[in-house]
Amino acid sequence: MNIALLGFGVVCGGVYEILKKLPEYKVTKILIRNPAKKTMDCMTLDFSDIENDSDIDLVVEAIGGLHPAREYILASLNAKKHVVTANKAVVAAYFEEFVAAAKENGVKFMVEATSGGGIPWIKNLQRVGRIDKITSLHGIMNGTSNFILSAMTSEGKDFEDVLKTAQELGYAEADPSADIDGDDVRNKCAISASIAFGCPVDVNSILQCGIRHISKADIDWFKENGLVCKLFATAKRSGDCFDAVVEPVLLGCDTVEANVPKNYNITCLYGETIGEVKLYGQGAGGLPTGNAIVQDIIDINTDNAYDIAFGNTFEKAEIIKGKYYIRIPKECDNYKALPGDIIEEEIPSENGTVVITKETTPAKIHILTYRENSVFVARFI
Amino acid sequence: MNIALLGFGVVCGGVYEILKKLPEYKVTKILIRNPAKKTMDCMTLDFSDIENDSDIDLVVEAIGGLHPAREYILASLNAKKHVVTANKAVVAAYFEEFVAAAKENGVKFMVEATSGGGIPWIKNLQRVGRIDKITSLHGIMNGTSNFILSAMTSEGKDFEDVLKTAQELGYAEADPSADIDGDDVRNKCAISASIAFGCPVDVNSILQCGIRHISKADIDWFKENGLVCKLFATAKRSGDCFDAVVEPVLLGCDTVEANVPKNYNITCLYGETIGEVKLYGQGAGGLPTGNAIVQDIIDINTDNAYDIAFGNTFEKAEIIKGKYYIRIPKECDNYKALPGDIIEEEIPSENGTVVITKETTPAKIHILTYRENSVFVARFI
Repeated sequence: MNIALLGFGVVCGGVYEILKKLPEYKVTKILIRNPAKKTMDCMTLDFSDIENDSDIDLVVEAIGGLHPAREYILASLNAKKHVVTANKAVVAAYFEEFVAAAKENGVKFMVEATSGGGIPWIKNLQRVGRIDKITSLHGIMNGTSNFILSAMTSEGKDFEDVLKTAQELGYAEADPSADIDGDDVRNKCAISASIAFGCPVDVNSILQCGIRHISKADIDWFKENGLVCKLFATAKRSGDCFDAVVEPVLLGCDTVEANVPKNYNITCLYGETIGEVKLYGQGAGGLPTGNAIVQDIIDINTDNAYDIAFGNTFEKAEIIKGKYYIRIPKECDNYKALPGDIIEEEIPSENGTVVITKETTPAKIHILTYRENSVFVARFI
Repeated sequence: MNIALLGFGVVCGGVYEILKKLPEYKVTKILIRNPAKKTMDCMTLDFSDIENDSDIDLVVEAIGGLHPAREYILASLNAKKHVVTANKAVVAAYFEEFVAAAKENGVKFMVEATSGGGIPWIKNLQRVGRIDKITSLHGIMNGTSNFILSAMTSEGKDFEDVLKTAQELGYAEADPSADIDGDDVRNKCAISASIAFGCPVDVNSILQCGIRHISKADIDWFKENGLVCKLFATAKRSGDCFDAVVEPVLLGCDTVEANVPKNYNITCLYGETIGEVKLYGQGAGGLPTGNAIVQDIIDINTDNAYDIAFGNTFEKAEIIKGKYYIRIPKECDNYKALPGDIIEEEIPSENGTVVITKETTPAKIHILTYRENSVFVARFI
């Protein structure tokens, strides 16, 4: 099987390393952007060299971003080449279009590497879905934010200090927004829910709230109450409706999810006969993510790939509910936006007021948090 | 696809329930033992009705035990029928023979349901093995013993009280030996290691030590030291050698494995490029185990089943090592069997002496524990 790589960064570098040991698979072209990095004959700066090469059976896309990733994926599929991608942003935005184009051209479109890195999450979601209705899923799907939350909990440091360490270690970008504000998790949540529910889930319909405003005061409160904070993607279905949200949650400290360390990920599903299944592993990195891509490649080559089918339709509804923890700093007047009838308890402290709500919906709570203020919220589960 | 079930207990009952919803699969014969339980026309007391029925494509074996399970499996394979089994004892004892017979007859022999119940463990071991050398695996693979250890830890009760509760809840048998002495885990360890290493691992070569002699005094000591005790299967390889052992281990209380609750299982592997992967779920029960069997059935029917290949040979060596916790009751003179040079620390207490050893091997430690005395040992990891 002849393979083209779009991009040659961390992920495609991992793919290249792994494929070197599998003689059946040959990387014959690599698309790069920077002429100065052309170190191999098979490298090209021109995508049409790949699109028009009829010897290439499969294209691996890991350039990231929406454009030209979308155009490259569609052109590859239309040129009857299978596509395997690690690009969660482009899949979350155009999943339905890619699946339709693959079907029309009789080729495969595979997304294992978009969600959960090395964790075999998408394949197992699809396998469970052969038998069971998957009624809910959740997970810790961003290693950077988990690293920050874990370090804040274990080392008692404040957010900014830990973020700086994460940046120095290469776990967090200079602009950490995609990781800490939940954008990355939201893309993975949309992709996972689309597969689990057999229906393209609009990523923009997923409410999102990150960990940017968590403080040492919050972590201390959680510890005192036997709780651990994690950033969760959650999706549920009920009848003809579904719901999905990305937000911090509070778990008992003796749960499996609460003990996912460092930059590891965990993904969890609930199926009718299989019950609860949880999968834990490295959510990022060249070799684990490269491994996920190569698994997709082998599945395609050995006729073991499952088709993605979007036969179902669901309406978005408010299914995910819970009590919330809200910390409102002293200088913040967003408090007024909280409807009085959802407050269960108010706990004043030197670091502002902690409010515990009655059961309510993410929509009612997220409205309190904008990037420019400093309210932190988390759902009790 | 026409399917025969051998047995109609909890597991085959689960298979039957799940297959009712999949019209492509039809249960056409069921072997039962007790004529009084013949409630359906398709039930028979005579295995030859199934063996000689050329319309039957696949046989599900869940009668348990070594005989006649071995004979039924071999006869089914020789009659060119695929075999899917949940019977860990017979697979651990005759794995190589079954794999050879399946190959000779051009049919599949599938064992997902033998290890980890509903957890898709075997399939994912095989998938990871397509790319990576699996260098080690471990897991909590017996729900009964995990229920007992979890309840002792959370409720502060002694072993006998918790065992009684487990028996009342149906989690433990009247004779709990297979669960608490590690026999069940040892079978699963042999099967998992055989798949992971591509080599039939002799179940009798695996040292085994259970939780029968754990006491409240042990649990209290572990709690004081931030530790949690779990019964682990462990297998490792290094070069041309492998090692495997079943024994209690001591984990930090903030690890994923330490927080596996109730009767849940977790299975973990380490692969060269994928890194650590852990899978969590229901390790027993009719629907989860039935689900695992039906996954195997669908894989066979859709040509997605992986062959089990035993091309590798390994020698058993002492690769698994560690420091051990040993509690030696006052009345017990086994202490004398402990070579003085492996003792790191002796801690006298009203419940006997706690000994912490230097790094040593399971073989040197297990020799201290026999069912008739009451020494409890666990390896620090």
